[in-house]
Amino acid sequence: MTPPRPSALFTDLYELTMAASYFQHRMFAPATFSLFVRTLPKDRRFLVAAGLEEVLQFLQEFRFTAEDIDYLRDSGRFTVDFLDYLAQLRFTGDVYALPEGSLCFAQEPLLEISAPLIEAQLVETFVLNAMHVQTLIASKAARCYSVAKDRSLLDFSLRRTHGIDAGLKVARASYVAGFIGTSNVLASKLYGIPSYGTMAHSFIESFADEEAAFNAYAETFPDDTALLIDTYSTVEGARRAARVGQALLQRGHRLRGVRLDSGNFLTLSRATRKILDDAGLPFTRIYASGGLNEHKVERLVTSGAPIDVYGIGTDMGVSTDAPSLDMAYKLVEYDGRPRLKLSTNKVSLVGRKQIFRVYDAGGTYERDMIGSREELVPAVARDVGVITDRVAPLLQPAMIQGRITTPQPTLNDHRTRFLAEFTHLPPAIQALARSTPYDVTLTNLLTRCQQDAVAQLRTQYEIV
Amino acid sequence: MTPPRPSALFTDLYELTMAASYFQHRMFAPATFSLFVRTLPKDRRFLVAAGLEEVLQFLQEFRFTAEDIDYLRDSGRFTVDFLDYLAQLRFTGDVYALPEGSLCFAQEPLLEISAPLIEAQLVETFVLNAMHVQTLIASKAARCYSVAKDRSLLDFSLRRTHGIDAGLKVARASYVAGFIGTSNVLASKLYGIPSYGTMAHSFIESFADEEAAFNAYAETFPDDTALLIDTYSTVEGARRAARVGQALLQRGHRLRGVRLDSGNFLTLSRATRKILDDAGLPFTRIYASGGLNEHKVERLVTSGAPIDVYGIGTDMGVSTDAPSLDMAYKLVEYDGRPRLKLSTNKVSLVGRKQIFRVYDAGGTYERDMIGSREELVPAVARDVGVITDRVAPLLQPAMIQGRITTPQPTLNDHRTRFLAEFTHLPPAIQALARSTPYDVTLTNLLTRCQQDAVAQLRTQYEIV
Repeated sequence: MTPPRPSALFTDLYELTMAASYFQHRMFAPATFSLFVRTLPKDRRFLVAAGLEEVLQFLQEFRFTAEDIDYLRDSGRFTVDFLDYLAQLRFTGDVYALPEGSLCFAQEPLLEISAPLIEAQLVETFVLNAMHVQTLIASKAARCYSVAKDRSLLDFSLRRTHGIDAGLKVARASYVAGFIGTSNVLASKLYGIPSYGTMAHSFIESFADEEAAFNAYAETFPDDTALLIDTYSTVEGARRAARVGQALLQRGHRLRGVRLDSGNFLTLSRATRKILDDAGLPFTRIYASGGLNEHKVERLVTSGAPIDVYGIGTDMGVSTDAPSLDMAYKLVEYDGRPRLKLSTNKVSLVGRKQIFRVYDAGGTYERDMIGSREELVPAVARDVGVITDRVAPLLQPAMIQGRITTPQPTLNDHRTRFLAEFTHLPPAIQALARSTPYDVTLTNLLTRCQQDAVAQLRTQYEIV
Repeated sequence: MTPPRPSALFTDLYELTMAASYFQHRMFAPATFSLFVRTLPKDRRFLVAAGLEEVLQFLQEFRFTAEDIDYLRDSGRFTVDFLDYLAQLRFTGDVYALPEGSLCFAQEPLLEISAPLIEAQLVETFVLNAMHVQTLIASKAARCYSVAKDRSLLDFSLRRTHGIDAGLKVARASYVAGFIGTSNVLASKLYGIPSYGTMAHSFIESFADEEAAFNAYAETFPDDTALLIDTYSTVEGARRAARVGQALLQRGHRLRGVRLDSGNFLTLSRATRKILDDAGLPFTRIYASGGLNEHKVERLVTSGAPIDVYGIGTDMGVSTDAPSLDMAYKLVEYDGRPRLKLSTNKVSLVGRKQIFRVYDAGGTYERDMIGSREELVPAVARDVGVITDRVAPLLQPAMIQGRITTPQPTLNDHRTRFLAEFTHLPPAIQALARSTPYDVTLTNLLTRCQQDAVAQLRTQYEIV
């Protein structure tokens, strides 16, 4: 089950006006656009590709409704001919893409769309928006995953994500990148992600005292209670929770957990663990939440804090340290010719491309080569001096002539892919701290194509 | 016209489990929750309240559908009695709120909801999510507005907002906070915001050369063309644009604008202005976009850069410097008694409240007092030693017993309110640079209520 189909009007106005001009000038030749991240945010060394499923569904169902056409007509900007054209327009192109959950790097295409120019142009805004937010969040969530070791991570960000759609997508993207679940009920329903919950301070405060609140909740959910213990004093709260846990145990139930939400998590989790263990509740898990991010989790895990589950909220859900990626969707070929711009610091790689990943003997990523789509693995392997088995192309056909290729992977497939790929990422690239970037270079063929295209433009525009 | 009603399942799981326990224990007494920002982000001195309209609509239409109930039943977590209760539940409470476009400060309630406990609890996640993103973005956009002087601002952020809903809300919130329009066609349709567009580099690159592209677009939109001139060389691009503008002029049309998207905007805008003026095109406006934020706009405006329109994208649309607010929704009263927690650094203000703004003789904001809801303006004025006319209460009834009060202001009313209020904000508080915070204190009455409530809890929990 998925949310309703986004409107074709979810676009920047210029996509429509450019399309109108292409239409007037009969520019229907095939074009290829490449979507990639130009440079990684500070201290980031890898990306987790996510968002493709939504892009493919959007493309397959792309159309302007009668209401959309009426709206555009009323704007007075467009001719009747063009509106008639839009009314019958469908997306008929091909998409080559990284499967969701794949690890990738700056300059590498996450997807390339080849379609008649107008089709490929009109979908730009949506494709960027959809790929951007999920790749952004999956990449951030993966940083949390990288430091959590054997501890579990939950998405607790819904109240501060940027709107409704972001709330759903954050739950989805963080699940792909190794989180085990979310507090978000609607995301759980739509995507089949496990949902988790505890209780809020308001619950505690609504009762005559803390222990009465604990008992009330345990009475309602004897086998699924996680008590929030920091409302008045965390250590006293832990003692009260232990008493409630013992009473539950006498009735044959196990207190699932307690949650810390403020204070010094290291000392409080140790004190709480001791109280629970001394009370005969070694199975009661300790949850922590409240202002957590990958750095705090890393410190706590490294310090041996006995916290079993980390609820990560705002900092993951809005990717606080880097709330956007420098993601672009650039024309790289039109009517059989490479295309690019020469704008300052914004050169893109021409033509239809492929990413070739080179592995070491143990399966760890050694380097990536960005090449032309038609290059063959043996030739690339020869170029870099490894055997063919150590090189794999990463972009796969995800849509052919407007139809999604089958079988499409499921959300759990994406998550499995991420978990598997992550074990092959070099530890230095996994690390939170700044390190040497992963090695990404161009193949000889793409280097030549790029140099030729730049040289031709420089000649044409007399730029020295 | 507005987007479809959000699902009642757009919530954290714990809202539902707490509600189930409240239900089991027959806790139906009235509660009041207060929504506020605990502390402002670094270098921020004010907030622009936004998002209320969506909250009110959500509350008025709040219900669990049969499909929602089925889903919750299938989860196995809830009793039949509770599900039957949820199926008939409607929101019957009152909302006091700041009108959208209002300026406010840390600790001040943006809204307070009074309703039977379960109703007020169940809506928490949505209310926070909705108020957070629009207040966040309106507050960021207002910073851009504060430095733009007589220049115009456009929202160009759609491709990098966090999802679809954020894309729409960013267009709306930035319009409230002084932007003149957006590139976002769907937001333009839904909210009636003016839409603007230029062209992308891909358009230029699709033609045989830059001037051919310019001419083609001008042919399609002779009275509404803004040419992107930095694809190959901005100064040469400006010369070509000037030729196209002159040709348009000969046919009785005016070139609307040119857009700079890279390079040194100060020198390039001056060179471009001179080229356009020398070509007899003084009416052609210069647009700038590409990595802009309030600091860059301030420098350009202060330097006298001849840029007429700034397109602000990612940095506004995700509020890069502060992508979240420390916004909370806290129980402050239940069953007639004040409620609060004592958690470290997270004390909230008890009871139903009002914000009283104190103005100087010229109408400029002098200070705010947060007081109890029932306090009267003359008493507050007497406390601070000013005449009654200089004090105004800010929170207004927006919903009574589940019905939106009428007439509700329109989006343009919100924008007008913001523009008017902003002129009364002290210049030091408007400034981007860090300055003394605006003066917000508690009334004597609220101070006493707060002290009493804290003292009582400390006694109850034996905290010294």
